[in-house]
Amino acid sequence: MNQHSSLNRTIIQKLKTITGKVLVSDADRISYAYDATNLHYLPDAIVFPENQEQVSNILSLAQEAEFPVVPRGAGSGLTGGSLPVKGGLLVVLTRMNRIISIDMDNLVADVEPGVVTGIFHKRVQSMGLFYPPDPSSSAYSTLGGNVAECAGGPSAVKYGVTRDYVLGLTFVIPGGDIVQTGVRTAKGVVGYDLTRLLTGSEGTLGIITQMTLRLLPHPKCVQTLVVFYASMHKAAENVSKIIRKGLIPKTIEYLDHAAMACMPLDFPGGIPDEAKSMLIIEMDGAPGQVHTDIQDVIALVTESQAISVTKAENSLQAQSIWQARKAISPALYRYAPDKINEDIVVPRSLIPDFVDKVDELRHATGLTMVTFGHAGDGNIHFTVMLDKNDPVAKKKADTVIESIFDYTLALGGTLSGEHGIGITKSGYLYKELNPGEQYLMKQIKKAFDPKGILNPGKIFPEP
Amino acid sequence: MNQHSSLNRTIIQKLKTITGKVLVSDADRISYAYDATNLHYLPDAIVFPENQEQVSNILSLAQEAEFPVVPRGAGSGLTGGSLPVKGGLLVVLTRMNRIISIDMDNLVADVEPGVVTGIFHKRVQSMGLFYPPDPSSSAYSTLGGNVAECAGGPSAVKYGVTRDYVLGLTFVIPGGDIVQTGVRTAKGVVGYDLTRLLTGSEGTLGIITQMTLRLLPHPKCVQTLVVFYASMHKAAENVSKIIRKGLIPKTIEYLDHAAMACMPLDFPGGIPDEAKSMLIIEMDGAPGQVHTDIQDVIALVTESQAISVTKAENSLQAQSIWQARKAISPALYRYAPDKINEDIVVPRSLIPDFVDKVDELRHATGLTMVTFGHAGDGNIHFTVMLDKNDPVAKKKADTVIESIFDYTLALGGTLSGEHGIGITKSGYLYKELNPGEQYLMKQIKKAFDPKGILNPGKIFPEP
Repeated sequence: MNQHSSLNRTIIQKLKTITGKVLVSDADRISYAYDATNLHYLPDAIVFPENQEQVSNILSLAQEAEFPVVPRGAGSGLTGGSLPVKGGLLVVLTRMNRIISIDMDNLVADVEPGVVTGIFHKRVQSMGLFYPPDPSSSAYSTLGGNVAECAGGPSAVKYGVTRDYVLGLTFVIPGGDIVQTGVRTAKGVVGYDLTRLLTGSEGTLGIITQMTLRLLPHPKCVQTLVVFYASMHKAAENVSKIIRKGLIPKTIEYLDHAAMACMPLDFPGGIPDEAKSMLIIEMDGAPGQVHTDIQDVIALVTESQAISVTKAENSLQAQSIWQARKAISPALYRYAPDKINEDIVVPRSLIPDFVDKVDELRHATGLTMVTFGHAGDGNIHFTVMLDKNDPVAKKKADTVIESIFDYTLALGGTLSGEHGIGITKSGYLYKELNPGEQYLMKQIKKAFDPKGILNPGKIFPEP
Repeated sequence: MNQHSSLNRTIIQKLKTITGKVLVSDADRISYAYDATNLHYLPDAIVFPENQEQVSNILSLAQEAEFPVVPRGAGSGLTGGSLPVKGGLLVVLTRMNRIISIDMDNLVADVEPGVVTGIFHKRVQSMGLFYPPDPSSSAYSTLGGNVAECAGGPSAVKYGVTRDYVLGLTFVIPGGDIVQTGVRTAKGVVGYDLTRLLTGSEGTLGIITQMTLRLLPHPKCVQTLVVFYASMHKAAENVSKIIRKGLIPKTIEYLDHAAMACMPLDFPGGIPDEAKSMLIIEMDGAPGQVHTDIQDVIALVTESQAISVTKAENSLQAQSIWQARKAISPALYRYAPDKINEDIVVPRSLIPDFVDKVDELRHATGLTMVTFGHAGDGNIHFTVMLDKNDPVAKKKADTVIESIFDYTLALGGTLSGEHGIGITKSGYLYKELNPGEQYLMKQIKKAFDPKGILNPGKIFPEP
């Protein structure tokens, strides 16, 4: 155990009594020091509770002994939400991974927080049902983490985000009280909406131990289009045009030239030489309707002088299009060893303005910048590639991020669509939230966690 | 001014300076003492602010002088949310009724709280857009009141409730601070979700002065079916059967025999003699799809031995079906001079159980009970008709309500789907909310309103 641990021998002993096993070795602590940000902070100890009572006992002990508690699922977060920045106890919820029930009549599921998103997707799909939230990390991310961060994904333009699928929660607050909120029905207005307050609260208000999620019937048909454009502007403009026609695709993904260059060479149908950007458009619903909608989209993009438009011939081809899209993020490292990745959102009609701004900054700084993302809902993954050991590049990149954030807010956008604030964005919080709003949020934090033991150092910048 | 007013001459003078006009006469106070509950509580004074600054100045003065402030729209609430139960100042927001902007590219609208829901519906529809939340009172209710109560309506089964359409809010908290929350985009996870915390908070946390609402493209086609059944059970069972088939209607309304008897005699197509209950089912979407879906529903209800199924031949006929449905609530007074009306929700597959329970209570007490409502989302308007001056009937009715609430919760339901708690249900709050949940809600109330001046006496029962 490290010297400065907030967890003494007696506490570790008590934690063992509660959960059966506590990891404290250096090797274990290092293994759990990371998330997807590449930052690392060592926890003092790690536990794996198996039920709500254990979580309650942990938070009762933590409140009494005043040590930090950090909840964590798969550690796939992109803003440091699950990093133990003040040390303390890491509570890994992956063993609470039961799908308790799936109710086909009422289209609700009861699940524990450690259920892997992708496993849940497959299970409900096998029953003809659909759970839309789909972060890129869905193969390993957990539903609890998705709720804590209010995860999104490519289909928010039509289906919304995690918040729109959380009907009820059970969570434990510091001190150990177990709180049940929400309902099992579409409607429910009894008291304040604690369910959505917890959703997206990044593990700072309570540890979620059970969730009631809303499901939909699985769309009977999906069709996928790939459209290439000679300019980023044309692609970006088409996004609004499609929506204005009253067509709401399941997905409109957008890739700029630098992002396209990171796709595998065997991309289905190839990539035209003159292509500077592309859209992946997916329509879903009943077969007849999807067919009509796809024809409408093809007509619209053709009128708008797209270079080419190709329909995936079967689900296998559609799958390889999506694999290519998901491969971009890791492949970006070919540009530089480090990545600063922001998930800003702008009103979708203003994506062309945002794209111009990026061009301007690219020319001004000479840095490699990549933009791609969920254009249908205006959520753009803006990435600066650099070598962080190069102080000049690092300084330029910081200025770029600051400019991008300011411009995003000027366009009526938001600093984070789906990754949350965590620690990486807390320094910028003041740009978006006015003092009144920050004051209320801090008061709410105090109400739930008066001693500040739960996931300390997150969201709100340290004074 | 009344003797016990919390508003002295100096305060009234200051309010006049802020808003230009303050009503204090007995006649005016009586006019504003009511809402749709038929309960009445006299305000001490009434103001009609015209902008956010005036609301801010009012709440600054109220905090300083510690007088109650009760926000109100059209006063069409059904649980007393806008009644000044502790006197004080009634802040009527009907003059803040601008539709500020409707953005067709990004499908969002900015509106003030006093906009009448029905006027907004028509305006967006004229632009090919759709705002789904639709309380029965939409002809006169205001959007601000709808957000404060999280209003629902018949289409929640497919489209959700008001909460699902509120993207951002501006509101004023006691003390006068103006707080802006949320975004103009589908995604946004910067800090805690104050937007949805305010939604459904029944005017107890802040006074909403502006709202950013999400819109949809207007469905191109709607078709309406009326189906009659020989038993309530058969109708209730069909609701789950339809959903299980993967068909999500815009609306599935349910009427029992007593509710049907309150419909106009010229109901389109007539009412078969042997009919004991009915469903009104509406499918919307693209024309081809709606046609297929309607055929599927007709096949399904025919198999389930419905007495008859009729499709509205045109929109005029559909309109008169809905007029008949909306006429039920007021027509119920033919049964008795008083009405106790609850809007419980149960998982839709358990509606048959609920219906059985009502039968049991009807037989046990001899009271007239009517059930009808939004069966698609399990939201049933359960009504007991009685003469409240008859102490025996009153006592029986109270017992019935208590039983109905207990049974609703036992079925996994909730005490209110869309009317809120206000004052009429606060005595039952403890049945649904556990102590931990109530504690957190009261702490949140304190954070927003430490002196308890904003809409006091609501939601939480008085100690």
